[in-house]
Amino acid sequence: MTKVGIIGGSGYVGAELLRLLAGHPEFDVAAVGAESNAGSSIAALYPSLAPVYGGRSFGTNEPDGFAGLDLVFSALPHGESQKVLPAIVDRVPHVFDLGADFRLAADDYAEWYGHAHSCPELLDRFTYGIVELARDEIATAEHVAVPGCYPTTVNLALAPLLVDGIVDPTTIIADCASGVSGAGRSLKTTSLFAEVDENFGVYGLLNHRHTAEMQLVLSKLAGHAATVLFTPHLAPMTRGILATAYARPIGRAPDTDALLARYREFYADDPFVTVVDEPSGTKATLGSNSVHVSVRNDPRTNTIVAIACLDNLVKGAAGQAIQAANLIAGLSETTGLPLVGLAP
Amino acid sequence: MTKVGIIGGSGYVGAELLRLLAGHPEFDVAAVGAESNAGSSIAALYPSLAPVYGGRSFGTNEPDGFAGLDLVFSALPHGESQKVLPAIVDRVPHVFDLGADFRLAADDYAEWYGHAHSCPELLDRFTYGIVELARDEIATAEHVAVPGCYPTTVNLALAPLLVDGIVDPTTIIADCASGVSGAGRSLKTTSLFAEVDENFGVYGLLNHRHTAEMQLVLSKLAGHAATVLFTPHLAPMTRGILATAYARPIGRAPDTDALLARYREFYADDPFVTVVDEPSGTKATLGSNSVHVSVRNDPRTNTIVAIACLDNLVKGAAGQAIQAANLIAGLSETTGLPLVGLAP
Amino acid sequence: MTKVGIIGGSGYVGAELLRLLAGHPEFDVAAVGAESNAGSSIAALYPSLAPVYGGRSFGTNEPDGFAGLDLVFSALPHGESQKVLPAIVDRVPHVFDLGADFRLAADDYAEWYGHAHSCPELLDRFTYGIVELARDEIATAEHVAVPGCYPTTVNLALAPLLVDGIVDPTTIIADCASGVSGAGRSLKTTSLFAEVDENFGVYGLLNHRHTAEMQLVLSKLAGHAATVLFTPHLAPMTRGILATAYARPIGRAPDTDALLARYREFYADDPFVTVVDEPSGTKATLGSNSVHVSVRNDPRTNTIVAIACLDNLVKGAAGQAIQAANLIAGLSETTGLPLVGLAP
Amino acid sequence: MTKVGIIGGSGYVGAELLRLLAGHPEFDVAAVGAESNAGSSIAALYPSLAPVYGGRSFGTNEPDGFAGLDLVFSALPHGESQKVLPAIVDRVPHVFDLGADFRLAADDYAEWYGHAHSCPELLDRFTYGIVELARDEIATAEHVAVPGCYPTTVNLALAPLLVDGIVDPTTIIADCASGVSGAGRSLKTTSLFAEVDENFGVYGLLNHRHTAEMQLVLSKLAGHAATVLFTPHLAPMTRGILATAYARPIGRAPDTDALLARYREFYADDPFVTVVDEPSGTKATLGSNSVHVSVRNDPRTNTIVAIACLDNLVKGAAGQAIQAANLIAGLSETTGLPLVGLAP
Repeated sequence: MTKVGIIGGSGYVGAELLRLLAGHPEFDVAAVGAESNAGSSIAALYPSLAPVYGGRSFGTNEPDGFAGLDLVFSALPHGESQKVLPAIVDRVPHVFDLGADFRLAADDYAEWYGHAHSCPELLDRFTYGIVELARDEIATAEHVAVPGCYPTTVNLALAPLLVDGIVDPTTIIADCASGVSGAGRSLKTTSLFAEVDENFGVYGLLNHRHTAEMQLVLSKLAGHAATVLFTPHLAPMTRGILATAYARPIGRAPDTDALLARYREFYADDPFVTVVDEPSGTKATLGSNSVHVSVRNDPRTNTIVAIACLDNLVKGAAGQAIQAANLIAGLSETTGLPLVGLAP
Repeated sequence: MTKVGIIGGSGYVGAELLRLLAGHPEFDVAAVGAESNAGSSIAALYPSLAPVYGGRSFGTNEPDGFAGLDLVFSALPHGESQKVLPAIVDRVPHVFDLGADFRLAADDYAEWYGHAHSCPELLDRFTYGIVELARDEIATAEHVAVPGCYPTTVNLALAPLLVDGIVDPTTIIADCASGVSGAGRSLKTTSLFAEVDENFGVYGLLNHRHTAEMQLVLSKLAGHAATVLFTPHLAPMTRGILATAYARPIGRAPDTDALLARYREFYADDPFVTVVDEPSGTKATLGSNSVHVSVRNDPRTNTIVAIACLDNLVKGAAGQAIQAANLIAGLSETTGLPLVGLAP
Repeated sequence: MTKVGIIGGSGYVGAELLRLLAGHPEFDVAAVGAESNAGSSIAALYPSLAPVYGGRSFGTNEPDGFAGLDLVFSALPHGESQKVLPAIVDRVPHVFDLGADFRLAADDYAEWYGHAHSCPELLDRFTYGIVELARDEIATAEHVAVPGCYPTTVNLALAPLLVDGIVDPTTIIADCASGVSGAGRSLKTTSLFAEVDENFGVYGLLNHRHTAEMQLVLSKLAGHAATVLFTPHLAPMTRGILATAYARPIGRAPDTDALLARYREFYADDPFVTVVDEPSGTKATLGSNSVHVSVRNDPRTNTIVAIACLDNLVKGAAGQAIQAANLIAGLSETTGLPLVGLAP
Repeated sequence: MTKVGIIGGSGYVGAELLRLLAGHPEFDVAAVGAESNAGSSIAALYPSLAPVYGGRSFGTNEPDGFAGLDLVFSALPHGESQKVLPAIVDRVPHVFDLGADFRLAADDYAEWYGHAHSCPELLDRFTYGIVELARDEIATAEHVAVPGCYPTTVNLALAPLLVDGIVDPTTIIADCASGVSGAGRSLKTTSLFAEVDENFGVYGLLNHRHTAEMQLVLSKLAGHAATVLFTPHLAPMTRGILATAYARPIGRAPDTDALLARYREFYADDPFVTVVDEPSGTKATLGSNSVHVSVRNDPRTNTIVAIACLDNLVKGAAGQAIQAANLIAGLSETTGLPLVGLAP
């Protein structure tokens, strides 16, 4: 068995790692740390985990507790990983950071996150990437910076269009909706049931930080600079992200049938990407590591529309981290990861 | 008291008319018809209405039952009003049709609804319009074609931009989300709780019929043809529509502060329109006839973003019909209509 | 106009008072205080209130700001009213306390709330009671201790059975479910959307403080000591309480039809109580001040089952406070209070 | 691989069997039948299943299509199994009927379901039972009548109390709440999102058919006749059942700590039963085959309260059927069945 650890295990992403790893046949959870919840019973915070982790408590996030493990997942909030991981990266073969700290180049990080990175010298040791769009780099990576939930959705929705040069990368609008678990388990009025329920609204207008990851990846795929107007919405649900992305075609674009065929070809070897004729809703992916993708060409308005959805805690976070870990560990990518969503 | 009738009173829009009219000091519900529910107790279908309508049953939709009333609201599904209203329009001073049958010119109707209109000669007797954008025409109208829920939201979000020539009317994307009550009380798998709950998805991609009403109104406001790409989504909630609308500015557009100031001026005399600096979520309008509107200029992507939300059954249907009726009846527009949403 | 004030106006009960008073034709909100939110814009906390209270901010809870008003509603958390109200009760003709501080006798308070009451000498100046069960006392009260949400539901469900001596008051089980708004706007993990959504669970097992109010009222109605086993549950919804109450009949009880007839007679003069043959769900009362009540006799198991539901923020709190205020002010009890729930 | 078939595979229980079997390492889905959906694409009805069943369609429920398989699950609505299964029971070694048709003796069936059983001669070939309460009988069964969702919850909550003679079996009240998926995928107004959302209500008052199964099992465990007053409620959620069960102790019952210890001992060898000090909410079991159970003794009211929760589609249906099949097939009971719920 491969020994794995989780730093920051008491948040929602940490709990999702624990859930998925409970069903993973090759990875054994050897250590789970937490910050303020260190010492608390895992089952007290997450009764759902009681049948498997019933007798265990969260340890601390102290690096010593993770040294010597085979793989370490870090699910700390943005800004925290760069404080903790420097003392880990040389003591563990592979770290998978699920926060934002090692995704961007130092200058991009400073621009979008508003402060200088505290350990820019480590950035090169982290490979950023969605497995489906950077399989070879990740397979041979030392450490991995796991992409954010929104960028994963938007970039998988649009990737074939940019690779093929079908759309103008400066015209992208990514209109997205997410369930509230994306905001984590921390206490905010805006995360209260009575505020979220029966409510649909926009937030992070014009300047949400995930824009940077979208532009980074889409620019690379397109071969020149992409500009994305990203509008996140909060939907009254716990999990799920749906991206509806718009872009102007360059010249005469393939029609919808041809685009769908191209998407199927593009993702033919990706078990977690399902190309669907009729766009799925988020619930099709609930609890699974799958992404459902569809696309349309609308000649009437001269616009290409691409739609993707996934579970933000699985494919958008814990699941894709495990997928990358499977790849690096030489396992089948799908090991321990559900393909089928919980529906109804 | 003004005697009012409701045709098609057993659907969700009909029930909402009954709810609002229960608190209206000048309008007395003299007749409520239904199709398949004729003869059923109102309280059996809508226990919420029991305290006021407890002893009453739905009558039929037969025109004779409505002749001689002062005002008649018709809440029939699209295609049904044009069958029933010809026998009503000469026997009642003012009919308010909440369906789609009298909103578009005959050729537009045929194009978007897929069949010829059966009484095009009556179209001229119906005035189409949102009160805020066509107050004078509606005040003096004979009959009123009440706008659809999505077009009301999108058109109020964008109106000042098109009146002032700030955006190019051929570049509009209207990305919207609605609660499921917009699909009515009819039995569809896609309206089941187990299908809608925890689910967010797109529907009516590229060709939703409400596009026609958006283009109709926005073209008139702009003075030349508007093209709208309208993408409706279904959100896991009962009521509420939020529109996030995008358009390219013409030349150098006013900045966000100037746009907000202009919106405040534009809607200064409209009690049901609240211009907000930070966009509200739909729940701010739950059960009320209010619309909350905001706007942004994003120079980085050269895009104007306008956001509006409302309760689809109130301002999007029953409430704005009563608002128009108040206007025609010479009452204050706000009579009997809540301004404040039910929150939390 | 009657000048009213709200102490603790920024919580959910305070916001509901503001919502209802926005539509009240005789009560004018002259002062709204808050503790930590003093100075904040009302519309920033509650965008729903913007159309009516858009220009106003919360003041402080300082007593001086309320002296001289006609009526004051206090919506402070339990334990806070007894600190603030001593400086108010002699400077305002009528105070309506919506917290728990003036509901119980001093010894009962100490037993159930775990600490001595700080101003027991004021308890006699507060009349406790549901209007429907104590109309005369409240009509002539100086100050009013407004009952809790659960006791209001349970006591209205069971009252006729105890008044008529139909059930044994020592055998009562009150199994209830509530929406999460009952926990208020304060930040607790258990109130987060991601925790409440798709979740139904029990809390406060065996010793919830509202038990005391149930036993107090039901004992008085029965004429001897009632014992209640009260089990509250949290349901994944914002508003609404449903009580399913069980008790053993004394001797041969009336059958279901006779019980329903008796309930209708008992509540004949109460506009806010609707006796229904088939029990309503909570949504029938959403946003209204109505209670729906039904009852069954089950000879097979020798049990009487009574069911009631209401909106915890309206009839369970703000609405019944205004109802009491209407009564004391000599207005119709229903002034400004919706009878019809928001459904769907 | 063991070849399994599903009759009635297009309903919610059928879809849940497909979901769970997609992750089962030993069972291969060789045939999936449907009634009205025969011929439809599985992915069209359940997009969630597309990643695994993308290319497949539902076949018919014709018995010939299932003859020769190793195991057949029947997920037909009540009344339908007894029409279809007579032509299957001799052609397949083990049938697991998830409907109500083979659970009760012929006379009990007639009493609670209102019509005579059409093949009473087959009843003896079906073994009814929850694995945890009848492991030996099921391990050696030919065919299995899988218990209903509510009885599974209530009976697991109460079993130790009746086996030990702690409570009087004639005093049981089972107050339960369920998510709406228990009503299946069929079209009913009461299952619409707009009706269920924000609503909590009672149904099936006094005479719900699942009462019979509770009385059957609890009587057997107690050794004399149990009487159960069962009150189901519908909660605004898709999955989950919580039972709060009350009974009077016989004599002096063990205190809460002793009861919890006894429960832990009673279920010590049951991986799917987790005894918890603090009762879990339903979400702790979402998507898993686990049951969480707790118990209290309340001397103040002389009542024992037992609480259990589970996912009605998993442990309440598809999951416990697979658990029984694992047992009969000689596999570990937990094969392919999640222990951990999907939370948040």
